Amino acid sequence: MRIEIVTIGGEILCGRIADTNFVFLARGLARLGLSPTWHTTVPDAEPELGEVLAAARARAEVILVTGGLGATPDDLTRPALARAFGRELEMRETLWREIAARYAARGLTLSVASSAMAQLPVGAEVLPNREGVAPGIFLRDARGLLCAMPGVPREMEAIFTQEIAPRLEALLAARGGRPAREVVLRTAGVSETVLAERITTPEGGLVAYLPHVGGVDLRLQRPFGSNLEDADHARWVEAVRGELGPIVYGEGETTLEEVIGGALVSRGLRLALAESLTAGGVSAQLVRVPGASRYVEGGVVAYANRAKEELLGVASSTLARDGAVSEACALEMARGARERFGADVGLSTTGIAGPDGGTPEKPVGLVWIGLATADGAWAVRRSFPGRRDTVTARSITTALLMLHRHLAGIPLEGPA
Amino acid sequence: MRIEIVTIGGEILCGRIADTNFVFLARGLARLGLSPTWHTTVPDAEPELGEVLAAARARAEVILVTGGLGATPDDLTRPALARAFGRELEMRETLWREIAARYAARGLTLSVASSAMAQLPVGAEVLPNREGVAPGIFLRDARGLLCAMPGVPREMEAIFTQEIAPRLEALLAARGGRPAREVVLRTAGVSETVLAERITTPEGGLVAYLPHVGGVDLRLQRPFGSNLEDADHARWVEAVRGELGPIVYGEGETTLEEVIGGALVSRGLRLALAESLTAGGVSAQLVRVPGASRYVEGGVVAYANRAKEELLGVASSTLARDGAVSEACALEMARGARERFGADVGLSTTGIAGPDGGTPEKPVGLVWIGLATADGAWAVRRSFPGRRDTVTARSITTALLMLHRHLAGIPLEGPA
Repeated sequence: MRIEIVTIGGEILCGRIADTNFVFLARGLARLGLSPTWHTTVPDAEPELGEVLAAARARAEVILVTGGLGATPDDLTRPALARAFGRELEMRETLWREIAARYAARGLTLSVASSAMAQLPVGAEVLPNREGVAPGIFLRDARGLLCAMPGVPREMEAIFTQEIAPRLEALLAARGGRPAREVVLRTAGVSETVLAERITTPEGGLVAYLPHVGGVDLRLQRPFGSNLEDADHARWVEAVRGELGPIVYGEGETTLEEVIGGALVSRGLRLALAESLTAGGVSAQLVRVPGASRYVEGGVVAYANRAKEELLGVASSTLARDGAVSEACALEMARGARERFGADVGLSTTGIAGPDGGTPEKPVGLVWIGLATADGAWAVRRSFPGRRDTVTARSITTALLMLHRHLAGIPLEGPA
Repeated sequence: MRIEIVTIGGEILCGRIADTNFVFLARGLARLGLSPTWHTTVPDAEPELGEVLAAARARAEVILVTGGLGATPDDLTRPALARAFGRELEMRETLWREIAARYAARGLTLSVASSAMAQLPVGAEVLPNREGVAPGIFLRDARGLLCAMPGVPREMEAIFTQEIAPRLEALLAARGGRPAREVVLRTAGVSETVLAERITTPEGGLVAYLPHVGGVDLRLQRPFGSNLEDADHARWVEAVRGELGPIVYGEGETTLEEVIGGALVSRGLRLALAESLTAGGVSAQLVRVPGASRYVEGGVVAYANRAKEELLGVASSTLARDGAVSEACALEMARGARERFGADVGLSTTGIAGPDGGTPEKPVGLVWIGLATADGAWAVRRSFPGRRDTVTARSITTALLMLHRHLAGIPLEGPA
């Protein structure tokens, strides 16, 4: 089923407000196993409105429109919708009385322009707006259907959830056919390109790579209408999991910090941090998980060397001999955090985020991550390209990944 | 000048990630006095790519494309761009060697698919990508021009700022007319509505309010073609600055942490943090500024009460009597950070981020921020609505704002 979303709004086009309505609709469609194939944003103006609706009618079976249904004089959406379906606008007296009653109930004065809200294309169905005044519009003919919703997020969300989603579900059910399916595998520590070379995709399957600062998400999809059986899709997911092994840390919306939190809780372990270049970024990310106080004891942001010595017990001889960005310092920081906080696991970061402070031996981007437990301490070395914020972000991810691997019993250095 | 933006990316269409690139580009165009008239999002797939590029070519003079320039097998953008301009793709040997050298410098292995990144339409200009590997593409003919950028925000932003914006400016300058002008005043601590009531806008001027988690940016604009003289624009900016006083903390791209850093450096002061609910978020934000080690000594993430006592010296009687989320605890934490790190200024946060842990007396969202200097200690109380991440983000901003106000000699509690 080809679906298009049309956002009407100059405020969104000029970057003033983000189009959260679009994200809401796309996710709502995803829950039905549907995905829009096209999204257009245009101003509430002609010729754009006419053009976008004509083009969408030519391409798609379902068109979802948000915005432009208010009663301001610049509202051109209703006439444009009518023209797109080759119909006239007509005044709906019952609807008009309802709108007038709502205004009265709120103590508002009806403007002449408000009557535009009661003018609908001939044959259109009214989609009641329980959160506001302007109703949604449902139009259908042999070529397809169109649902128009107001741009106010609360009103749009209510109309989509209460009126439009059920109509789409009924449409899908009437057609039978295999619904869309998707499993998201979350990976960390390996690039998109390397993943692509290790994954095979069966006929009827589709894989999408979604890189973000913490790793790459793999979406293993069966699009609507594909021939791939449920069991084959499940087997495919298992095969990819098997091939990637510990590179996959979770499924769906699971975050690395949630996986870590779960492992710490289930093993009754408490964690302490010692952060230099990341300066609290690792602990801030860990405590995004509700209930993190069950396993995060705390940490020291040891930005200055004096703090590394006095609050973490790093030896001054280590700092003099190896410097703050060194394996020895990372190990002592991790051990120090563990001891000072009375925690089971200590995790440390030290490095040169740049842009200054690099030397030929220790260039900008050099990072050491340390981990200490009752059984010993380990450190890994990384060299990250990019700007200060990139080096910091990748250091945070690497520290979380090292902790995750330790807790999951995966060798700390591989696979890189 | 008719401008279209085309976003390529299935992950945006399915609602999984927000299209922050579009917002960045729309705002970047606004700085030039330009606004896109049409924005389309399509998947990295045919026939959509071909259709959207052909339609954009027919409608617009300038087309900005983001995404689809990676080297995974699903990349169809480069061939689609070439077709839209009726050109062949050709291998650029110099570019290919540069890309190979970048891979080598990072210790990465070149995959066969990577060579796609060096294939450009005949006659296209390379837009260097200083933040990544895949270069941008600049195409121009008698009908108009097209700029393609990778979808990774950092890379897209650098290419737009360094390569594309200057080309658009030159184009506008060649056409004559008073150029667009804009001054951005950054404010914190006051809502958009309150700002709007205090600002007057001259004929030919335009003000845009851009709220974000750290405050509201005011864009005082003279759009392209407006009659407002340079001197009148400058006078307007000064008048708004005068009216808002200390609500404005900086201009342009200046961040609150940069202003704070500048004030600490110029006064030779060093800072230490004591963070509970923000768990390192305040220090992580402060050290985003290069050279922050000149004034950030470090901090304690005191998530557990034991850490508050042992590493910050909060009295156990305080915790027993007032609890960890209290004025007394915030004050002792700030004093403790200052003393333990031998710093001049101590800054603390403690509160209930939720979703659990609230009580009728101390509901979720209750936050205390403390500040200690040689002259004394102060605390402010806030109550933030919203989810865990919102409460945390607003606590970080409030802590930074409190520190800024202290350093700037502004009363800590006003204007709220």
